[in-house]
Amino acid sequence: MGESFPMTGGDGPCSYTKNSSRQRASAASAKSLLTSAILGNLDIERSSRMFAIADLGCSTGPNTFIAMENIIEALTQKCKIEGYSSLPEFQVYFNDHVSNDFNTLFAYLPPDRKYFASGVPGSFHGRLFPKATLNIIYSAFSLQWLSKAPQELGDVNSPAWNKGRIYYTDAPREVGQAYSLQYAKDMDSFLAARAEELAPGGLMLILMPGRPDGTLPSQNSLGPFIRPLESCLADMVDEVCKSRNVNNLEYIYIYIYIYIYIYIYIYIYIVTVEPLQEIICDHEIDSLNMPLYSPSIEELRKLIEKNGCFGIARLETLPPMSVPLPSAEE
Amino acid sequence: MGESFPMTGGDGPCSYTKNSSRQRASAASAKSLLTSAILGNLDIERSSRMFAIADLGCSTGPNTFIAMENIIEALTQKCKIEGYSSLPEFQVYFNDHVSNDFNTLFAYLPPDRKYFASGVPGSFHGRLFPKATLNIIYSAFSLQWLSKAPQELGDVNSPAWNKGRIYYTDAPREVGQAYSLQYAKDMDSFLAARAEELAPGGLMLILMPGRPDGTLPSQNSLGPFIRPLESCLADMVDEVCKSRNVNNLEYIYIYIYIYIYIYIYIYIYIVTVEPLQEIICDHEIDSLNMPLYSPSIEELRKLIEKNGCFGIARLETLPPMSVPLPSAEE
Repeated sequence: MGESFPMTGGDGPCSYTKNSSRQRASAASAKSLLTSAILGNLDIERSSRMFAIADLGCSTGPNTFIAMENIIEALTQKCKIEGYSSLPEFQVYFNDHVSNDFNTLFAYLPPDRKYFASGVPGSFHGRLFPKATLNIIYSAFSLQWLSKAPQELGDVNSPAWNKGRIYYTDAPREVGQAYSLQYAKDMDSFLAARAEELAPGGLMLILMPGRPDGTLPSQNSLGPFIRPLESCLADMVDEVCKSRNVNNLEYIYIYIYIYIYIYIYIYIYIVTVEPLQEIICDHEIDSLNMPLYSPSIEELRKLIEKNGCFGIARLETLPPMSVPLPSAEE
Repeated sequence: MGESFPMTGGDGPCSYTKNSSRQRASAASAKSLLTSAILGNLDIERSSRMFAIADLGCSTGPNTFIAMENIIEALTQKCKIEGYSSLPEFQVYFNDHVSNDFNTLFAYLPPDRKYFASGVPGSFHGRLFPKATLNIIYSAFSLQWLSKAPQELGDVNSPAWNKGRIYYTDAPREVGQAYSLQYAKDMDSFLAARAEELAPGGLMLILMPGRPDGTLPSQNSLGPFIRPLESCLADMVDEVCKSRNVNNLEYIYIYIYIYIYIYIYIYIYIVTVEPLQEIICDHEIDSLNMPLYSPSIEELRKLIEKNGCFGIARLETLPPMSVPLPSAEE
């Protein structure tokens, strides 16, 4: 059973809506790739009166609205180039976890949109749509999320026990392997589900974090950004333990801003972790592991080829963007 | 521009989720009609791999889930009778206003459902879906809601000025006519939009409040249920005016339980009206009018025939259900 890691809802200062400009910038830098993929690789049936697009892991906007607008712009261009007498109608499906804040997403739908909008709740690691009903599947900054953190990371008897860490940077090889294996399983489920849902001639466009080819999972470059977070959590737990008043504590929800630098591009996420009291009471600090993974290009290529449902039209890296490391005060 | 009147969201004691058992009972009494309509009037193409159903005005559940289950049960029965080797997949679209609480709706989706679920935000008085993409359109206890209360009801210079009333029971003929005209416009928009969206051979199933044939709109039988509400509002306004401290008042949101008895069946709604302070400050108590209308069978038949987009397969009344009038204490 997968777990649910939705972005922070609403439109407050800690919301995804107000903290996703980096993802927006990265997606903007991929716009020309997206357009050329649609113009060059998509097969539109001339008899189609309707064209269906899904954004998997859309969160609450506004990035998803910009992406859908870009896709529809490219589709319109393609229809004009191919001499269509009239445009088909566009149906856009916005997908995210059941616990995603769809109310906020719907409230921010662009009033001048050129498509019919629909929200689809559920995990993209399983089926979400009837067979062969989608023409374009888009997913940006979502496929790094695993369906769950590998269980063995919290098992003291496992060689993959991830003691004192919340991620796999510089961890023993077994920890990185556990993450890699979970990612392989999740991608296999994802690809199998999408293969059923994509109509013949359709296209899947994926934008996701990665790491340089030839590196081990544990050698990912997220360390400088995850370590301060690990230290903060460890310090907070120490403080709470010293107070010896654990049972009277209010639940503490920690909003974590994770600044992650990776070779391929840079992004920011906000997640809400488990209530700290629960973690402390159950002595489970070592079982808190970020359910995120960034594959290498080669690793991803092998997974897609092994799955066998899709052919790869193009697989490449975007130029890195720079982002400052958060200071101690931040 | 239409207005939005969503049911109260969440799952608290005042929510639609917890206050819609009457609608559920009425819909249950119509189940056999629904089944026979699907078995007798629906045309399913043998080549269809997918079957799309929309519930327009679904609110937050659970009634909509029961209705969708009933429809899928009838469709399954039909496929078996007609000797299908395998069932098509089912796609259910849950529609309501943008401000409907879709988060609650999605949270309560039955985990063992036999369909792909999707939420569609927007008013059913306009287009919501691409052309010819729905096989069954269902709507229960929703089409009595107008897109807005007729504007002339709040105009002191209009013969339809609805002074001292919040509804049209026992009002001058012009008030009832204004409601009737608004309903005719709204139904025309509704039918025109649905005619585009329904696939050939499709079916529209509507369950809605009505009044006996041969009565004027103003002679509807809602009076005994609306009058106590009108009196309460008038008393509250008097109290507030006496206090002469209007500007320091907190906003008062009035949750109104409306027990409405109609000849055809009985239903309960909860609505949130405008903040009382605004009403008082703007001296607009007379412009508060419930945007609800219940047509006669004959009136509805004429509207559908005049619109010309649909043929009527069956149009009939359900036996009335009894509900006690709320006492003064309630």
